[in-house]
Amino acid sequence: MKVMVGGTFDPLHDGHKRLLDRSFELAGPSGHVLIGLTTDVFASHKVHPIRPFAERKSDLAQYIAGKNYHIDWLIEPLNDRFGSAIESDFDAIVVSEETIPVAVEINKIRREKGKRKVDIHQISCVLAEDSRWISSTRIYRGEIDVHGHILH
Amino acid sequence: MKVMVGGTFDPLHDGHKRLLDRSFELAGPSGHVLIGLTTDVFASHKVHPIRPFAERKSDLAQYIAGKNYHIDWLIEPLNDRFGSAIESDFDAIVVSEETIPVAVEINKIRREKGKRKVDIHQISCVLAEDSRWISSTRIYRGEIDVHGHILH
Repeated sequence: MKVMVGGTFDPLHDGHKRLLDRSFELAGPSGHVLIGLTTDVFASHKVHPIRPFAERKSDLAQYIAGKNYHIDWLIEPLNDRFGSAIESDFDAIVVSEETIPVAVEINKIRREKGKRKVDIHQISCVLAEDSRWISSTRIYRGEIDVHGHILH
Repeated sequence: MKVMVGGTFDPLHDGHKRLLDRSFELAGPSGHVLIGLTTDVFASHKVHPIRPFAERKSDLAQYIAGKNYHIDWLIEPLNDRFGSAIESDFDAIVVSEETIPVAVEINKIRREKGKRKVDIHQISCVLAEDSRWISSTRIYRGEIDVHGHILH
């Protein structure tokens, strides 16, 4: 299956890892995973500073390589919320509970353009020790680490 | 991955087949698929007559067996919308665009009970020749066949 997933992935935390792992599981051995990585310009709307694209890409590639999936994958720069998800021919998009509205919007636009809708796979967010979601913002604020451990 | 899917599956149409195929793809070789099949009593709220449980189960089992998946699967009777999806330990539920609200509700109840949420995989509904969804109701009405061909 051809799968798309996207994000800023900074820093790469356990929620991102679940998102990526599920994307590869879903794609399966003969599948393909396209990972949209926000550009520095697009990511600059975030409330906290973001590391440069090249560094984020390198961390992402290192994580994926370490999993030894025998599945094709590619990282593409994401200049907006949709990237190539409107025009491309693919099967499923993997999102979190936070980002599912983007997938719903992608399907709406695809339908308007006469393209078929894609499957939407929503992962359940990974919880930190305090039972709240792990998020980059919380990590940046120093509340938790990338695994969701509470920092004091 | 442990996957759950549910329905009445009467008659088994191309939309159901996509739902089942995706469930097995998602489960993967070492996974497990639990198929909840509505009981005759529970299915009797439908607007059209439903064939008996045993017949629906037999069609379902025949379709799955024909796919030669080397994946464990089981059909369980579904007495209500949730079946064992609240209490069970599983990873993902596969739903259609029509039935996604049930999955959202399942996650809400699981969370309230202190259980972890599961992934929700929403397939895009299979379209009939007239670009509307294939559904059992439309088939029963004689508008389309199980593959979505328009009947005159």
